[in-house]
Amino acid sequence: MEKRRSKLVYENELALFLDYYELTGGKADFDHKNTDMITETFFVRKIPKNLGSYMVAAGLEQVIDFISNYKLSKEDRKWLKKTSGNDLSKEFLDYLENFKFKGEIYAVPEGTPIFPNEPILSITGPSIDVQLFETYILNVMNFQTLVATKASRVVNAARGKTVLEFGARRAHGRDAAILGSRASYIAGSTGSALVLAGKKLGIPYIGTMPHKFVQERDSELKAFREYAESFPHNTILLIDTYDTIRGAKNACTIGKELREKGFDLKGVRLDSGDLAELSKIVREILDAEGFKQTKIMVSSDLDEYKIDELLSKNAPIDGFGVGTRLITGANYNSSTKQGEVSALGGVYKLVEIVKNGETIPKIKISEDTEKTTVPGKKQVYRTFKDNLFAGDEIVLWDENPPKNSRPLLVGIIKKGRVVYEFPKLSDVRRYCLEEILKLPEKYKRVADPETYTVKISDKLRELQQELIRKSKNQ
Amino acid sequence: MEKRRSKLVYENELALFLDYYELTGGKADFDHKNTDMITETFFVRKIPKNLGSYMVAAGLEQVIDFISNYKLSKEDRKWLKKTSGNDLSKEFLDYLENFKFKGEIYAVPEGTPIFPNEPILSITGPSIDVQLFETYILNVMNFQTLVATKASRVVNAARGKTVLEFGARRAHGRDAAILGSRASYIAGSTGSALVLAGKKLGIPYIGTMPHKFVQERDSELKAFREYAESFPHNTILLIDTYDTIRGAKNACTIGKELREKGFDLKGVRLDSGDLAELSKIVREILDAEGFKQTKIMVSSDLDEYKIDELLSKNAPIDGFGVGTRLITGANYNSSTKQGEVSALGGVYKLVEIVKNGETIPKIKISEDTEKTTVPGKKQVYRTFKDNLFAGDEIVLWDENPPKNSRPLLVGIIKKGRVVYEFPKLSDVRRYCLEEILKLPEKYKRVADPETYTVKISDKLRELQQELIRKSKNQ
Repeated sequence: MEKRRSKLVYENELALFLDYYELTGGKADFDHKNTDMITETFFVRKIPKNLGSYMVAAGLEQVIDFISNYKLSKEDRKWLKKTSGNDLSKEFLDYLENFKFKGEIYAVPEGTPIFPNEPILSITGPSIDVQLFETYILNVMNFQTLVATKASRVVNAARGKTVLEFGARRAHGRDAAILGSRASYIAGSTGSALVLAGKKLGIPYIGTMPHKFVQERDSELKAFREYAESFPHNTILLIDTYDTIRGAKNACTIGKELREKGFDLKGVRLDSGDLAELSKIVREILDAEGFKQTKIMVSSDLDEYKIDELLSKNAPIDGFGVGTRLITGANYNSSTKQGEVSALGGVYKLVEIVKNGETIPKIKISEDTEKTTVPGKKQVYRTFKDNLFAGDEIVLWDENPPKNSRPLLVGIIKKGRVVYEFPKLSDVRRYCLEEILKLPEKYKRVADPETYTVKISDKLRELQQELIRKSKNQ
Repeated sequence: MEKRRSKLVYENELALFLDYYELTGGKADFDHKNTDMITETFFVRKIPKNLGSYMVAAGLEQVIDFISNYKLSKEDRKWLKKTSGNDLSKEFLDYLENFKFKGEIYAVPEGTPIFPNEPILSITGPSIDVQLFETYILNVMNFQTLVATKASRVVNAARGKTVLEFGARRAHGRDAAILGSRASYIAGSTGSALVLAGKKLGIPYIGTMPHKFVQERDSELKAFREYAESFPHNTILLIDTYDTIRGAKNACTIGKELREKGFDLKGVRLDSGDLAELSKIVREILDAEGFKQTKIMVSSDLDEYKIDELLSKNAPIDGFGVGTRLITGANYNSSTKQGEVSALGGVYKLVEIVKNGETIPKIKISEDTEKTTVPGKKQVYRTFKDNLFAGDEIVLWDENPPKNSRPLLVGIIKKGRVVYEFPKLSDVRRYCLEEILKLPEKYKRVADPETYTVKISDKLRELQQELIRKSKNQ
């Protein structure tokens, strides 16, 4: 396995990245010699409103890194002993300090399009061990899957134009900026403004110029000239500090000066105003002065809805810088001005236990019937027609696959050993873009996409009904 | 200064936590020997819809830690040189490698209630230096201020009942879980489910029991019994795995067993269903069996709107576990089911430059007049009446303060030295709760609070108008 490319936050202390009930539950299991082998799965019940009909799986690499290295440090142990009062026993803490995960993990590779209720990750192991990872898996995979999903929509809306991730300033903390940049890149963005995303993950980093640079000089023209002198081969001018049209004319003046020195004016950037109208006027100004090759980049509270609208109006835009709404995975529809909470509600649920050799499927019943879980360890098969996705089927682990299908969950850890070779991030990105091409257009529309068919096998349905009946009769 | 309590993500590499334009702008400044001293301020133009009429400042400690230690490592430098092509010169990278911030920072202490357009942080220093911190300041302060603001609303809605932060599983990455827990604690939550928040920040960590623990046993009663045996002094039972009312009765059975051993049943937790109705029934069941001291805790997609509704219905709830909507700072109104993007749109803007000894206020004009900045280095004074906040005034730095007022921005770094003593987090929390008490009730209502008066001084208004005129005539 390749060296992990994204060292973790608060390194060496991450074994404590868990909700306390994972330790109290574990300790009570330990006290009562619970030796069950269990299976829990991570899945998403519902795609948030306004976020379309498919998701893009992301976050697996960070999760496997965590699980395969999990171990309580001496210092953490001491601290837990002290601060938990009598809650956590010496014996249980010993167990955690000598921890080594020996179970199995199957998961959907990063970059794979997935749908509601499909297991994205399935983990089997001793009960105490498996529960330790709940918070971490949910944290890392909910967020990255959310942003990859959003980014995929933005990239679709951009119809082949460049999408750049500009979100660090509005990301929820530093890790969100990096992981968000990662998820966005997986789903097809071309680069990030964040230099550290470049360093940690090899994502191309890019930048134009700050408003401040213009504001500080006596004139916009002087600012443009100084900037162009420093980056003659790579000049992208920000033209909206005072007046975008005047800015475009000033950019042409500088473009001519560059031309005399043998360089091209690479681009201009618009960051405010009516982007559809302004981009057309700016294009005309540039073209009239012979700057047909100069690109127009725009930014300003963009998302897939706005980008779709701009391109539907034939705005001559070459690249989109997308910030807040991408990095937060906002499920906000900027046309209807309605949204909800910027989060993916993925859950981690017990589906099966093996007690004394006997396999017992498990259910969590909810008055909200949508929330009642589907019991049993499961596989997902994706069927194909003319090389396009033609519906998925969720089945019990050992059921026969449907015709012309492939399984989505692949082996990641077996008997505690990582058996999966994590692809390079750029390969994950390529894979994702290829898979998205196989998803028929009607499921990818920005507004009102159709719902993709995910069948739950008859056996699974029967099993669920049986367990519901049993619980009622108890 | 106390030892920093929250080591940073991706430690030693954080000097690259910046948008690339901060380096290109800096390099062009460097090339052209820009020796201007400038002032930039961080402020929030507008509180997101549904998030009330005040904010709670948070994030300063992480920002000061970053700035006071800022320096490019040799490795980062080498990497930048290689990957930026010819963009960044040896001389400029030398400058960054030997960097030491020598400027000044004034800021509003963490935990202070603040209002739109008020500078929260004001930084003065060489132009190149000050721009390096833009992304970091925005990232850390936007997020923590957002969550502290949300948490303050949740705590107000809870009317003195306990609020626990349960958000890690839906936080945007690992850092968001920790920083969100921090911000939430500052604004009055009592503890966090996240153990690492306890370790890093001294926040009390708490937990009940997982559904899984119940699902795994043959019966709920058996699960409760095993859990109680492990934590007789600290038993909080999760009673909704199958049927909440049956769960409450089972909890009473265990409560009696505990009683025989000399322990009390500490609490029960409801995590689904109609919490107003169920909490009343559960309270009756507990009371009838003599468990009047047993607390009822609830969770399940809570926010300030739901908590307010529950308590308005006299639901006998003692504590609220609040997750997704707290840790994402969701500006979602669960009554009207409308929301936007879970982010705070704070900005970092140039307001003044000092060139060859001359002070020149600066403006950024926008067609969207709301976005036009107020030029000049500024202070904020808070006025008081009967010891309650009675309106703020934003003034030029050297204007006279209004009567009966105190300045909000205090010195943090002077001549490059940290002069501010960061209080302990529990003291920040206490300060915040005291300050919120001084904010009259009408500004704190969950729904439709009044707008607090923030005056912009006449001098500032005149200055702004003058610069707008000048720009138009240019």
